[in-house]
Amino acid sequence: MSASQDSAQHEPGYADIEAAARRLEGHAIRTPLLQSAALDTRTGARILIKPETLQRTGSFKFRGAYNKLRRLIDEGRRPKSVVAFSSGNHAQGVAAAAALLDLEAAIVMPSDAPAIKIANTRGYGAEIITYDRYRESREEIAARIAGERQAVIVPPFDDAEIIAGQGTAGCEIVAQARALGAMPDALITPCGGGGLMAGLAIAVSHDAPGCRIYGAEPASFDDTGRSLRAGERLANAADARSICDALLAPMPGEMTFAINRRLVDSAVAVSDDEVRAAMAYAFDTLKLVVEPGGAVALAAVLNGRIPLRGRTIAVMLSGGNVDPRHYSEAIAAAPK
Amino acid sequence: MSASQDSAQHEPGYADIEAAARRLEGHAIRTPLLQSAALDTRTGARILIKPETLQRTGSFKFRGAYNKLRRLIDEGRRPKSVVAFSSGNHAQGVAAAAALLDLEAAIVMPSDAPAIKIANTRGYGAEIITYDRYRESREEIAARIAGERQAVIVPPFDDAEIIAGQGTAGCEIVAQARALGAMPDALITPCGGGGLMAGLAIAVSHDAPGCRIYGAEPASFDDTGRSLRAGERLANAADARSICDALLAPMPGEMTFAINRRLVDSAVAVSDDEVRAAMAYAFDTLKLVVEPGGAVALAAVLNGRIPLRGRTIAVMLSGGNVDPRHYSEAIAAAPK
Repeated sequence: MSASQDSAQHEPGYADIEAAARRLEGHAIRTPLLQSAALDTRTGARILIKPETLQRTGSFKFRGAYNKLRRLIDEGRRPKSVVAFSSGNHAQGVAAAAALLDLEAAIVMPSDAPAIKIANTRGYGAEIITYDRYRESREEIAARIAGERQAVIVPPFDDAEIIAGQGTAGCEIVAQARALGAMPDALITPCGGGGLMAGLAIAVSHDAPGCRIYGAEPASFDDTGRSLRAGERLANAADARSICDALLAPMPGEMTFAINRRLVDSAVAVSDDEVRAAMAYAFDTLKLVVEPGGAVALAAVLNGRIPLRGRTIAVMLSGGNVDPRHYSEAIAAAPK
Repeated sequence: MSASQDSAQHEPGYADIEAAARRLEGHAIRTPLLQSAALDTRTGARILIKPETLQRTGSFKFRGAYNKLRRLIDEGRRPKSVVAFSSGNHAQGVAAAAALLDLEAAIVMPSDAPAIKIANTRGYGAEIITYDRYRESREEIAARIAGERQAVIVPPFDDAEIIAGQGTAGCEIVAQARALGAMPDALITPCGGGGLMAGLAIAVSHDAPGCRIYGAEPASFDDTGRSLRAGERLANAADARSICDALLAPMPGEMTFAINRRLVDSAVAVSDDEVRAAMAYAFDTLKLVVEPGGAVALAAVLNGRIPLRGRTIAVMLSGGNVDPRHYSEAIAAAPK
């Protein structure tokens, strides 16, 4: 998963996030920072909701993908084309960024990926290359395509420009919180490979020193939480399952873990049932469509996994790409 | 429906909306103005989405209710208690406003109202008084309670302070659009009794002269469209039905029609199927939960009912209070 092409990438710093913000200006949506009186009452905290569900392509992934590709172009290294492997949000983010930059994109997706995600990715103009996830290696397919087409691979998280792009959401959170007169005591974000959390951590630790950073993970994919406690990267069980399809990375990224180990307080875990209940709460009370993986931080807050009372807490809703059937099951089944 | 208690109410003007905005400051949510690249591509317009779905209680209704009650208190006319009749959004808006102002509220609701709406209204601390909608008159029940309890009746739309409160959303739209450098050529809003549209029209015609104002209605409740064409208030058929439960007023209000007749271009009609498809589009692409009545203006835009190409158009999403079952049916059934 950490197929970075830059042979000697250094960790991104705050200046890289500032540069990413300039590249994204006018292209990424500056998503709002929302408040809910009902959620504040329920938690005893002042909650600031950052809905990257409202971002282009329905998740934060557009930020990193656009930043990486735009930087290559600005530096005179315009690629012939772009390739990425993903079954979901990263696919759509890369496809949309490539289309805006007039680059051909090929996305390697498993043949059994949800039809709606394949259709959405194709809708951004990308070529879809399907593979048999039980017989073929997506990394090998992507590498072969990259060689044949002189294409650049856009990795999903373990990459300095991807991390810097995701970090722009953190600068927005602090600026928007400041405008509300409500600087956050803590930020909690969904965590898969750790790219979003690493970017947010760099941004927020700079702009709001003292703000604690927490990750939230599915209970069966709690690799970052365990790795942070162990001080080394640990993998998830090979047979682990979760409804949070956006958060199924096998283990923390090398670069993302190095950053998160330094800047993140801890990561907490939530069950799939807690995720469904959080999706239902977002439907019923916040009126926001959130996908399972996008709802884990909200689930952690609703279940008191981090200290809440009297605090101001920024909660990242990282994506909203969920098919109607799974969504309907989540909002119907969950207790209020 | 026009049970105003102020015997000689005058039409609200822009100054009344400014006063309402001061009263609502820090109490109503300043909902964001959202953009969607996908929606712009589909329509050929620049669409600015005002999601009052994200307002306190899940609809714009809180604005008018809070403004009316707060003004009474500020003027030394604090009521003993508050009464309103409504099966939906107005009930929740009045209940939440009364709770914030430490006023007792009684809401007269039909005994067959959706359990979730009764529960939500009770959740704001209101007393629920149910009645048999086929045998009893809710107006008589409300009037009796008002007399017994020295309560003030908060009417749903045909009232100067209610209209002024709803109009504050219009001032926000223009200010937020100006900040984006995208002044609207047109605004389209859902229309039931016409209170929201009247308030928006007063605000927007002042702040953005030349901006056209359109209403959107269910096809079987197109009373405002027909009334505007006829130049007089016309009623809907007594047996009319629509899934847009928030927009079932029997005819335009007296005061709202006088305002809308002067300031509104026209009102367009959409079918229930077009409403379901708009709800599905908001789910799939905008990631916003919108109820049937809240989606009629979006439905009108998606179906080209007003001129779109090259224009900047503000679209009001007026509410998001829908139960999971009806929502699931809408997002499952609609063609993409």
